[in-house]
Amino acid sequence: MPEDTRLPEAAPYPPEELELDLRWWAAANYLTVGQIYLRANPLLHEPLALEHTKPRLLGHWGTSPGLSMIYAILNRRIRETDTDWLYVTGPGHGGPALVAAAWLEGTYSEVYPHIGDDAEGVLQLFRQFSSPGGIPSHVSVQTPGSIHEGGELGYALVHAAGAAFDHPDLVVACVVGDGEAETGPLAASWRLPSFLNPRRDGAVLPILHVNGYKIAGPTVLGRTSDADVEGYLRSQGWDPVTVSGDDPDLVFPALRAALARSHDRIRELQASARAAGAPAEAVRHSWPAIVLRTPKGWTGPSVVDGKQVEGTNLSHQVPLSGLASDPEHLRMLEEWLHSYRPEELFDADGRLVSELRALAPDGDKRMSATPYANGGRLRTELPIPALAAYEVTLDAATRGQSMVENTITAGRLMRDVYAATTTADGGGTFRLFSPDETASNRLQPVFEVTDRCFMGPLRDTDEQLGPDGRVMEVLSEHLCEGWLEGYLLSGRHGVFATYESFAMVSASMAVQHVKWLQHARELPWRADVSSLNVLLTSTCWRNDHNGFSHQGPGLIDCLIPLSPEVVRVWLPPDANTTLSITDHCLRSTNHVNLIVVDKQKHLQYLTLEEAHAHCAAGAGVWDWASTCNRDEEPDIVLACAGDVPTQEALAAVELLAEHVPDLRVRFVNVVDLMALLPENDHPHGFPDSTFDDLFTSSRHVVFAFHGYPRAVHQLIHGRSNPGRFHVRGFNEQGTTTTPFDMVVLNRMSRFHLAHEVLRRADRRVAGWDTLTELCERRLAEHRPYIEEHLEDLPDIADWTWRGLDSRPATDGSGR
Amino acid sequence: MPEDTRLPEAAPYPPEELELDLRWWAAANYLTVGQIYLRANPLLHEPLALEHTKPRLLGHWGTSPGLSMIYAILNRRIRETDTDWLYVTGPGHGGPALVAAAWLEGTYSEVYPHIGDDAEGVLQLFRQFSSPGGIPSHVSVQTPGSIHEGGELGYALVHAAGAAFDHPDLVVACVVGDGEAETGPLAASWRLPSFLNPRRDGAVLPILHVNGYKIAGPTVLGRTSDADVEGYLRSQGWDPVTVSGDDPDLVFPALRAALARSHDRIRELQASARAAGAPAEAVRHSWPAIVLRTPKGWTGPSVVDGKQVEGTNLSHQVPLSGLASDPEHLRMLEEWLHSYRPEELFDADGRLVSELRALAPDGDKRMSATPYANGGRLRTELPIPALAAYEVTLDAATRGQSMVENTITAGRLMRDVYAATTTADGGGTFRLFSPDETASNRLQPVFEVTDRCFMGPLRDTDEQLGPDGRVMEVLSEHLCEGWLEGYLLSGRHGVFATYESFAMVSASMAVQHVKWLQHARELPWRADVSSLNVLLTSTCWRNDHNGFSHQGPGLIDCLIPLSPEVVRVWLPPDANTTLSITDHCLRSTNHVNLIVVDKQKHLQYLTLEEAHAHCAAGAGVWDWASTCNRDEEPDIVLACAGDVPTQEALAAVELLAEHVPDLRVRFVNVVDLMALLPENDHPHGFPDSTFDDLFTSSRHVVFAFHGYPRAVHQLIHGRSNPGRFHVRGFNEQGTTTTPFDMVVLNRMSRFHLAHEVLRRADRRVAGWDTLTELCERRLAEHRPYIEEHLEDLPDIADWTWRGLDSRPATDGSGR
Repeated sequence: MPEDTRLPEAAPYPPEELELDLRWWAAANYLTVGQIYLRANPLLHEPLALEHTKPRLLGHWGTSPGLSMIYAILNRRIRETDTDWLYVTGPGHGGPALVAAAWLEGTYSEVYPHIGDDAEGVLQLFRQFSSPGGIPSHVSVQTPGSIHEGGELGYALVHAAGAAFDHPDLVVACVVGDGEAETGPLAASWRLPSFLNPRRDGAVLPILHVNGYKIAGPTVLGRTSDADVEGYLRSQGWDPVTVSGDDPDLVFPALRAALARSHDRIRELQASARAAGAPAEAVRHSWPAIVLRTPKGWTGPSVVDGKQVEGTNLSHQVPLSGLASDPEHLRMLEEWLHSYRPEELFDADGRLVSELRALAPDGDKRMSATPYANGGRLRTELPIPALAAYEVTLDAATRGQSMVENTITAGRLMRDVYAATTTADGGGTFRLFSPDETASNRLQPVFEVTDRCFMGPLRDTDEQLGPDGRVMEVLSEHLCEGWLEGYLLSGRHGVFATYESFAMVSASMAVQHVKWLQHARELPWRADVSSLNVLLTSTCWRNDHNGFSHQGPGLIDCLIPLSPEVVRVWLPPDANTTLSITDHCLRSTNHVNLIVVDKQKHLQYLTLEEAHAHCAAGAGVWDWASTCNRDEEPDIVLACAGDVPTQEALAAVELLAEHVPDLRVRFVNVVDLMALLPENDHPHGFPDSTFDDLFTSSRHVVFAFHGYPRAVHQLIHGRSNPGRFHVRGFNEQGTTTTPFDMVVLNRMSRFHLAHEVLRRADRRVAGWDTLTELCERRLAEHRPYIEEHLEDLPDIADWTWRGLDSRPATDGSGR
Repeated sequence: MPEDTRLPEAAPYPPEELELDLRWWAAANYLTVGQIYLRANPLLHEPLALEHTKPRLLGHWGTSPGLSMIYAILNRRIRETDTDWLYVTGPGHGGPALVAAAWLEGTYSEVYPHIGDDAEGVLQLFRQFSSPGGIPSHVSVQTPGSIHEGGELGYALVHAAGAAFDHPDLVVACVVGDGEAETGPLAASWRLPSFLNPRRDGAVLPILHVNGYKIAGPTVLGRTSDADVEGYLRSQGWDPVTVSGDDPDLVFPALRAALARSHDRIRELQASARAAGAPAEAVRHSWPAIVLRTPKGWTGPSVVDGKQVEGTNLSHQVPLSGLASDPEHLRMLEEWLHSYRPEELFDADGRLVSELRALAPDGDKRMSATPYANGGRLRTELPIPALAAYEVTLDAATRGQSMVENTITAGRLMRDVYAATTTADGGGTFRLFSPDETASNRLQPVFEVTDRCFMGPLRDTDEQLGPDGRVMEVLSEHLCEGWLEGYLLSGRHGVFATYESFAMVSASMAVQHVKWLQHARELPWRADVSSLNVLLTSTCWRNDHNGFSHQGPGLIDCLIPLSPEVVRVWLPPDANTTLSITDHCLRSTNHVNLIVVDKQKHLQYLTLEEAHAHCAAGAGVWDWASTCNRDEEPDIVLACAGDVPTQEALAAVELLAEHVPDLRVRFVNVVDLMALLPENDHPHGFPDSTFDDLFTSSRHVVFAFHGYPRAVHQLIHGRSNPGRFHVRGFNEQGTTTTPFDMVVLNRMSRFHLAHEVLRRADRRVAGWDTLTELCERRLAEHRPYIEEHLEDLPDIADWTWRGLDSRPATDGSGR
């Protein structure tokens, strides 16, 4: 049980206000218990009988009363100050409490008209809970007022932060559970004060709710002293106050005072930071935070079957069970429900009594109705400049000749998006998030117009750094991804750029975000939000001094099985396609766009106009790289997806054109990976006719792929004779070596591809033996060359092109 | 730059010892710089010329000198106290420093005889670094003395903890970088004192190395005051001391004193905890920790081209570049190298001078040679009891009738493994790691012999909890996975049991561990370690009150593209197969075993003897569930993998047997998923002859699969006519609903399977229309039934079996 009640300061709480808030709390608790237990007799208009209870009891009681208490007191604060608050529920299983609050505020019935505001509505509210086709026990997409799924724990504070960025008038009350506090992402996210700027950002008010227990035992913080919990927060830039107790008459005033003090302090420090000419010291400070210790399962059954339940983990889920076999438990349940005096909370029709109804803030000020939790309502279109200014120019003569860093066009575009969206006060609607790699990823043009955001003290040697910087760099993929998720779900735009291999660190978050968007699409009241754009720029094919641990294209495999309505995977082969794709992704809504393109210099193939057409199509034949005309049936198809695979495939075509000119090779490049799926399986999926028009219906296809080869095999299942596809890709052969050695190790080099084309071609054309022998010889020579030269490979071109006998076709004609 | 030098206490450092240690440090730094820059003239026996330098400069200098300083002083401590230390290098890019240390101690030449201990060896050491086919710039599998890959940051402290558990005589010096400290997993892992028991465990001494910068800017801790950094650690159970400065003559003594004080304190508190009858207070305490602030790139070029490099992020990688174009830079490099006075460090042959050589501890006490970092040398076989005691008994009459929780056999086996491995002092060689779900996962038999480990204060109401508990529960998949990795790599055994969906949280760690094992297998000096066993028990098919966020089989898709030498995926259909697989996995080495089996009650199909045979085969025909004889060519194959799919497939066979008795259906169950891969692609992959013997070479195969259906399609590429496989599985349709509704939503129900079998069967047998109509009717009835009944489904059996018209075949004969 918590320690003695601690009152942070004298707290005025007129008795009539306290009494009302306690009754609202009772109503929330009643509705929470009802959701878990009742399927009939929802307002106890008759004595409770077994048949009124659900046969299978599911739900989480333990955390709920605390969540509702905070909600009740915040509502009063909102009405008093007419301010915008968003409620982020870290203790995810407190779903019934948040559903109850939304119902009490009227939002639930507005959003779901089949759940009315009367007794029948209460019954439906109860029946849908944890029922087939109903709602889960955790806070979910379906919960009005939520931007935060209560499943995979750890992201409460990052989602809260993302919502607060660039929303200067918003306060995000973020309840963090002491279970969740043990997770990695949550632990790291306490560093928010190093990145939150009171001049342009809203505030996050963390309420660390220590009820002491997880499902099966105590939490670490539950057995940590107040001094250490406060010290933990204080050392990370917070100014905490602890509220502790188990007597509502004492805890309510204490928490109200703590909330008022925190809110006042937030407004003070925002005001001083926003004052004209405010010095840096006014911008850097500790933010208020609250530590709240109340009993788990508070107001529920205290002791059941001789065991302490209230205040222990035994109240985590269903504190009273076995109702059918134990009449005493049924009686205790009835007593528990009656303890909230439902007859004083609801009128004869089951409607919330008017004086409690009046406790809800007005309209959009209700936390369950705030547009900040339904960001599409706040979202404005991103002003994206015309792309012509960023085009990498090339023509038939320079196609496949010049080398450009493929991501640099995206960097310049984002620079100008920053410029177009940054407001006079330093705010805006667009941010780039990256673990310390913006410049490394060749996105450094953004630093021409903004800096990295950092709230810590600055030094003379610092560059491109400061509190007003709008590029978010922190060495945590979890924070980057989570901040961006919160930023998007509250109505803004952004990009998360990171290392391909280490994108796996936050893969589970991307998966959960896909799930969120998938279900959000089904809810008409949720407005469209900007897509989550993940840009992977240091890929498996090029790692220089880094080794095998830095090489892994696995995020593609994580995403492709997920919702086809949401997931898009883009593999642009050059800078103009990267530009076109980036533009498309920044405009799109409700998707998770994975863009994979290497940051290093690569050959350039398409003009911007060609790139637009190619990306819009998703895949296409490159006539200029084919050795037969488009209307001819080829002997074989050579396909590719991704920048390095495209380069190797083009080099293979060059070899084939030179040595086996009679072989008809069609060259296909795929930008939109999901286009490979059948049209019934994905909105971008090609109809069979389109697919066969590209790949033929029966010819062998040698396919050079950016990721794991079998990813392509899973996508093309259902196409005619999928066994004719022979995919080369990243085969988990990695080490510190040259890019060309990487494609050799993974058997995707030009020589492997040309060799495979010859092997699969049905016709034994002139030159077949010569080229076969050449490929085998080149590959046989390769390892000795590498071993002999070791560090002796002088520059990037050689690292890239060692072994290339000739350049890709450049004349634009189908040879 | 760091603040003024802080001396924790008066530190005796005889001048001759200090001078020697500074020279050893100079040697380490020299070798570090040499690895980055030199390809000839390794010991500067002639003036440095451009052609002596590498054409492409790759590597990370910044963190290296700090790592080497710690190493040097620890070596002295080890020699003084004759104790076992393990060095975990969190700042991953400090690879050259650790390679240098291993060379200086002689270990490198012992392990890699082609890198000798003389000038030629030094040259080879330099040439291999960041070179094709050489070693990466980060600490890697190839680095002697490491259990920790320096790529994906965040796991230093969890790996260190895993190594310390149950190694009472070991001290793990864990250097944590201030960049890494921003990651989630690292932030959470500071809670170690709540789980480390001085009675039976070794110690972890964190050395938080704050050099202030990441690659492109300052770290959060770099701009945090000493008081706050110390407060952060103190509040989490550490007793930190700060050492800060940039004058080696002052910092060396300060750090030596801090290390001595910390080590002494560790030994004191271990002694008091281990004393007979020591009270709980003696077991719970704060552990020593060191905060070390030294300049990034210390002893390197101070200012380059007018910019401060030493002490800023500009020293992160290569502080001096452009040697070919800037002779001044080449001159500065030469001066930098000479500043270490190599002529006083190495003799004429390039061997380390004897007085520095003598600074290395003896034999296995060298941190680069410790068996604790090569855990296979310490590993003993796990005493696994005979399995008969755990068998779920069944015979032909009860096959497919009784319901048992599939994981309960594994729980009982682990209970007895605990009993057999726990030593008198409470230590042992086996641990189970789980985020708070051991009992929920039906592994609760382990609590008959041990408790959950918790070092915090206990309360009267606590159950199965205490400092001597050997089950590790913490609400962080990262900590569970990382602790287990460290535990295994230092020579022990264990299991990580978690929720299937949330296993994605630590998916990147599992991927990295596969990579580690893949490369470790290639190193003859690395001894075999126990496999990483991941048991997923709350699966996508059964989530009760949890919703879509809790449903995701994606870890399968993450692992199957990885090294076939390492990855195994097991899908046991019942309790005896689970037992057989668990036994196999616990005995295996060098693998990552993913075992997916639902914790809920399921029908039982195989005796233990049958289970052994079936699991050993990997997949097999179940004659008793087929409707034709084994030697007959079937009309169609009905295959399945996983518990719920097996149940539905069996129910489908029942329908088929009843309604279309003339249809020849062969029933195939797959336990070992990787057996589906071609034999050249995986050691478990079936030869085509075996594959075709099971699945025929041309018949349609309807396949009910536990995970995403296209996972099967990617595995069977290369088999004859893969288009004939029609896979049903988890199609990302999830919600809060009944298990039967889940299989309907995902179109894998018995009715879907039977319907698909009929649709694909080449023969239109008698009863075809009747059963087709029945399946369609049942499915048409299903949703109205669900919607009508909502929470009205009374018990688990109905939740599972609603819609089942008949039971699976039970007579054991091929009907």
